Amino acid sequence: MKQRLQQLTQWMKKESVDVSFFNSTENVFYLTDFHTDPHERLMGLFVFQDAEPIFVVPGMEAGQVKDAGWPYEVLGYADHEDPWALVKDALTNREIKPVEKVAFEEDVLTYGRSQSLLRLFNGASPVSVEETINHMRLEKDEGEIEVMRRAAEMADYGVKVGVEALREGVTEMEVLAKIEYELKKKGIREMSFSTMVLFGEKSGQPHGNPGDRQLQKGDFVLFDLGVVLEGYTSDITRTFAYGSVSDEQRTIYETVLAAQHASLDISKPGTRIGDLDQVARDVIEKAGYGKLFPHRIGHGLGINVHEFPSMSHLNDQQLKVGMTYTLEPGIYDPNVGGVRIEDDVLITEDGFETLTNYPKELQIIE
Amino acid sequence: MKQRLQQLTQWMKKESVDVSFFNSTENVFYLTDFHTDPHERLMGLFVFQDAEPIFVVPGMEAGQVKDAGWPYEVLGYADHEDPWALVKDALTNREIKPVEKVAFEEDVLTYGRSQSLLRLFNGASPVSVEETINHMRLEKDEGEIEVMRRAAEMADYGVKVGVEALREGVTEMEVLAKIEYELKKKGIREMSFSTMVLFGEKSGQPHGNPGDRQLQKGDFVLFDLGVVLEGYTSDITRTFAYGSVSDEQRTIYETVLAAQHASLDISKPGTRIGDLDQVARDVIEKAGYGKLFPHRIGHGLGINVHEFPSMSHLNDQQLKVGMTYTLEPGIYDPNVGGVRIEDDVLITEDGFETLTNYPKELQIIE
Repeated sequence: MKQRLQQLTQWMKKESVDVSFFNSTENVFYLTDFHTDPHERLMGLFVFQDAEPIFVVPGMEAGQVKDAGWPYEVLGYADHEDPWALVKDALTNREIKPVEKVAFEEDVLTYGRSQSLLRLFNGASPVSVEETINHMRLEKDEGEIEVMRRAAEMADYGVKVGVEALREGVTEMEVLAKIEYELKKKGIREMSFSTMVLFGEKSGQPHGNPGDRQLQKGDFVLFDLGVVLEGYTSDITRTFAYGSVSDEQRTIYETVLAAQHASLDISKPGTRIGDLDQVARDVIEKAGYGKLFPHRIGHGLGINVHEFPSMSHLNDQQLKVGMTYTLEPGIYDPNVGGVRIEDDVLITEDGFETLTNYPKELQIIE
Repeated sequence: MKQRLQQLTQWMKKESVDVSFFNSTENVFYLTDFHTDPHERLMGLFVFQDAEPIFVVPGMEAGQVKDAGWPYEVLGYADHEDPWALVKDALTNREIKPVEKVAFEEDVLTYGRSQSLLRLFNGASPVSVEETINHMRLEKDEGEIEVMRRAAEMADYGVKVGVEALREGVTEMEVLAKIEYELKKKGIREMSFSTMVLFGEKSGQPHGNPGDRQLQKGDFVLFDLGVVLEGYTSDITRTFAYGSVSDEQRTIYETVLAAQHASLDISKPGTRIGDLDQVARDVIEKAGYGKLFPHRIGHGLGINVHEFPSMSHLNDQQLKVGMTYTLEPGIYDPNVGGVRIEDDVLITEDGFETLTNYPKELQIIE
């Protein structure tokens, strides 16, 4: 935590930013180790160039902030108090020098709160802190990786539960409910996004919704799911054939798997991120399915299930040790059905490691 | 939908607001009948005084908007396009007169998007649309009530499942998982908030988290849960005794029940909202538990699980036909445990009706 705050203040000094303000659950967690959803109440972290930070939280959370190990000032406020006024008093007491530049999350902070913030630092000009913090969050440290590894194991387990729940006539929602039931029994309180279980032609819609569709022999079965564990996310997709598989289904499956392997094979420090997308796309296009792969190859993964970097063919950044992201090529045929295979990938000194490890060879579930 | 848009434009004319912009899933749904979560992509509704509205959505949603019955202009945009530029072109084509006042959701719209919006209407001054739309949403129409009734039935069902899952040694998370499993099997895709199942001393924490606590004879069991159904929410709390009940537990339970009845008894058109809180508080204080009832009596309920009005003793507004809200007094003793009893209430011409209907008499589950 202290190292992250230090890295941030270094940037602030370089850019002459007097105050940085964080309001998102995710960035506050990243910088304070404290994770909570304050709902409509204000939670905010003020970071200064030299003075110690101030962490504003709803009063009933103040004790937990201390318990979580936060060593600096905490301002707890009651529902009838104005948190901005409390901060103003704290700043006056500390004799913080006049603020000329205030950085905040322009894509998170509401207009209303931005006005309160700018009033607090009367006359200060706003700048975005988002690029800086997103950049800091790109390379995960050992502690983060350890948690993400366990989150990914839970995702593997979710797929296992899903496979075991398959039987002719079962509905998508029944299988989905069973997966989340077993994960909750293992202590998972939150999925990282709305779980997908899609059968047959519905797997052919990249944005399909699970429903009453019943499982039939010859269907593809697509699972896309992940969990939130100790503030970090996982995200896995696996596709299976149920009962039998046609030649065309097999070709589609093997093409997607080859595309994913192509991206994995070049996953190492120094690789241009856009190339991960391009090599997979080349495999799929060569097989004649180019038009049926409408999305990017993946996305950064960490505290958010979608975070930086965006793994599109346009991204000229390079992979670095500690980056974590998904690789998830897919082919979606509205008639035959769709296949997507997705792993969570960690860049290591030697190359890569997959955090998700459920087997990927085509399986026909009987 | 048309009636709601009309009501809004009447306000705009009165206040000389040239454009209203809506960005929240909830208000967009209320005004368009289209419900989706566009995640990080922009979805926005522009409403004008006289011209037809413009609805901007991610391209892949444009077809669904039409299917949902939206009769006006839809602007779908691709990921590589700038939606604000498309709106600018559309406005130029329509020869919309210069905009002097633009209303938007100041507590929802991010600072970044507010800047794009204000650039679009160069020089326009911003005003808040929130009070107006919150006010419009207060009184539910027949269609909304019908959906909320079904959402509340599902909440009743969730409690029933929870009660049936109780047995000595079961953990809070196991019971929670079972409740959500059975609701998902009935087609519920989303709970309206994080489900609460709390046993024994944990029920005595108003903000407790379900975990590994195992059920023992003599525990209170507190369920707090709700579902999202067709865009509307429900929210129920019931408390049970497991195996046996002490005299003190019985006194606490009967006090909370009497407090809730006191609030229900005065629930009718014309009642001052603050009095709902006050009469319940009086009952609890008279019984000597005043300090153990730390929260307001309830909150408005509808598209959001917490919406206007806030049912605190300070609220001087009056109840009107069609208002829907929760009544949820509680007493939380850190040692004995806690009791909360919550119903979803609809104000009718004659008085009130509870949408949730699970029995409330003290039950000792064997």
